[in-house]
This record gives sequence, structure tokens and C-alpha cells, in this order.
Amino acid sequence: MKDIKKQNNFCDIHGQKKILKSKIIRFKNNKWKGIKKIPYKDKAGNWTLIDRFPLISSSSIKFEIRYFEISEGGRSSLEYHEHAHVVICLKGKGKIRLGNKFYILKHLDIAYIAPNEVHQLINPFKEPFGFLCIVDRERDRPIEIED
Amino acid sequence: MKDIKKQNNFCDIHGQKKILKSKIIRFKNNKWKGIKKIPYKDKAGNWTLIDRFPLISSSSIKFEIRYFEISEGGRSSLEYHEHAHVVICLKGKGKIRLGNKFYILKHLDIAYIAPNEVHQLINPFKEPFGFLCIVDRERDRPIEIED
Repeated sequence: MKDIKKQNNFCDIHGQKKILKSKIIRFKNNKWKGIKKIPYKDKAGNWTLIDRFPLISSSSIKFEIRYFEISEGGRSSLEYHEHAHVVICLKGKGKIRLGNKFYILKHLDIAYIAPNEVHQLINPFKEPFGFLCIVDRERDRPIEIED
Repeated sequence: MKDIKKQNNFCDIHGQKKILKSKIIRFKNNKWKGIKKIPYKDKAGNWTLIDRFPLISSSSIKFEIRYFEISEGGRSSLEYHEHAHVVICLKGKGKIRLGNKFYILKHLDIAYIAPNEVHQLINPFKEPFGFLCIVDRERDRPIEIED
């Protein structure tokens, strides 16, 4: 894999730390205690109405677990990258674009997004669409594309 | 980290494969389509009434996602290892032992189990206790201990 760079976002700065002690993160009143929402990306792009919640990142593990929530009418960036993604739907339902195909994702449906697959998560529905996204901690930068 | 070995279980044999194409794994009727339950471990031990479902494993990613379900009265192995775990409760509720402390895990509570922490997942409740467990793909073997 060429051109692997650590992304310069909060998630990765957070990831420099080793979590030395075990910990429990409680889920109450529809959110995780102590987990603050941060901007989806540090630059504007072809995305809207999406929030990022960094759940677990540590130099003790080779992956990161993030939760994203897309409001009605929102979408993630249309992009591709060499690293793979795993998406697990936890709240509501949404659409995923993989190449030129679209699939509905419902509760606990899993999407494995292969390396270099053009993809986008979209919420055309009335309720928020929330999903876990698990990725390698060291990964290449996404390349945004025009629709 | 010393003595890192690929574990000789189905999950890791499965992990030799690269998932070249994106894919969707549907969750219907309380299970993931195409995902078969396999034995929790290939040897008997201090565990009982627990099933393992390998969800995602690929040489394209540095982590594996497994789902475990513990029936009433069941438990995972009491063990420790150098690799860290992330556990996310998806079904019912259960107990987690971290060192000599016990915590209840409910819907979407997350446990980060630090390297070398003695731990066990236990279900003293009436309903099945199901959770995701995310780990590095390359990891050391667990060491079981007596209670």
C-alpha cells in the first residue's frame, strides 16, 4: 500500500495515546458518556449533515472504532481510498453507495467496503441513520470525487 | 509484543483470505445471513454456553469483528493476553470481569479491555447476552487462568 499517511484529524491525534487501563463507556439517553461529537472532516466537501463520534482509538490496537450519525437529507463524502471500511448500522436506516450500486442498510446490517471502492453513506429517510465504522488506525487519505 | 502467533481457529483460517469485493451481510430474524456459528474455542476450558460468529476477517484489514452470544448461566474463558479487546453489547445484558471488578454491560455499552487485563464475560441473566468483540487480526494466544 503506497502513500500511507496518518490523517491529521482529532481522531488520529487521540490515537497517539495508549489506553493503558481498561474502561467502560456507558450508553445512556441515546449517547455514549464522555464521547463528544466532532466535525466529520476538517475541510468542507461533498458531504452534509453528518457527525462523527470517535469511540475507541489507542496505539495498543491497530484499528479505530467511530460512530457516525447522518440526519435526514445528509450524506458522507463520495470517496475512495486504499483502506477498507466495515460499517454496522445501529440506528435507523440509510443507503450505501458501492460503486454505482445502492443498497439499503437496516439495523445490524453490515457493509464491508473493499479497498478502492467508491462509496457514500446517505440518509434519505426521516429518522437519523447511525452506524459504527471500523477502520485500520494507519490508513491512507480518502480521495473525494464528484458525483 | 512477544510470542505473537496466529491462532489456529476457523476465524483465522478464514482470515487468510482477502475480501476483494465489497459485500453486504444482512441481519434478519435475529441473525446474520451466511454467518455460521462455530465453537467458541477448539479446546474445552473454563467456559460454557457461549457461541462465536465470525463476522468480518480479511487480510485487507488489520482487525477482525466477531459476535459472541452467551446463554443464561454461560461464560467466556477467564483469561488474559497481550492484545486488547473492544466489546460492544448488542443484545440483552451481561457482566464483565476486569481484574477483580465486575461491571454490568447493557445495550451499546462499550468495554475496552487493556492488554494483559484478566477478563471474563458472564451471563447471569435470563436472556441471551450478545456482543461484538473487535480485535487485532494478528494477536497472541490467550492464557486461561483458574478462578
